[in-house]
Amino acid sequence: MKGESELRKFFLKEKPVMALVTIRRERGEIYCSRISKKIDTTYAHTVKTISRMEEEGFIKSKKDGRKKLLELTDKGEKFSDHFLNLLSAFDEEKYK
Amino acid sequence: MKGESELRKFFLKEKPVMALVTIRRERGEIYCSRISKKIDTTYAHTVKTISRMEEEGFIKSKKDGRKKLLELTDKGEKFSDHFLNLLSAFDEEKYK
Repeated sequence: MKGESELRKFFLKEKPVMALVTIRRERGEIYCSRISKKIDTTYAHTVKTISRMEEEGFIKSKKDGRKKLLELTDKGEKFSDHFLNLLSAFDEEKYK
Repeated sequence: MKGESELRKFFLKEKPVMALVTIRRERGEIYCSRISKKIDTTYAHTVKTISRMEEEGFIKSKKDGRKKLLELTDKGEKFSDHFLNLLSAFDEEKYK
């Protein structure tokens, strides 16, 4: 039996899912750089992931000087809730 | 904007997820060969995917002559429900 993180990765593309739920979980203003740290991936890859989610209508962004302030759309909130439920279910299995 | 299947693949490892929900959705007896056809992947890859899910306690199997009859465990049912909800949400987006 492998770890819960491994198991999660068997079913989920971890970085996009974690990027989405990170925006949901974080209090306050969130930028790509913060997500990049939180999900432990390169800044370039995070920007690419976030752009795809913006293009698909999960995220909207607002210029804040040179930075882009990120926010979930209603669609993004709906899906992040689904993924949070799923991640909780994986966590519960871990502690069984 | 790419298709819904593409979008699903952006977040999910499609073959393991579809294998799990296929067992949930199918009426009657189900074997690897049937799943392989349904999820459009090789038999060898399907067997590998199913074995991992059996090892992780999502599936149990029973010998039926030379074949293995597959069934979801309670854990498998719980997760397949999560994934079915998620797939429905992707489907809904498709028709918006």
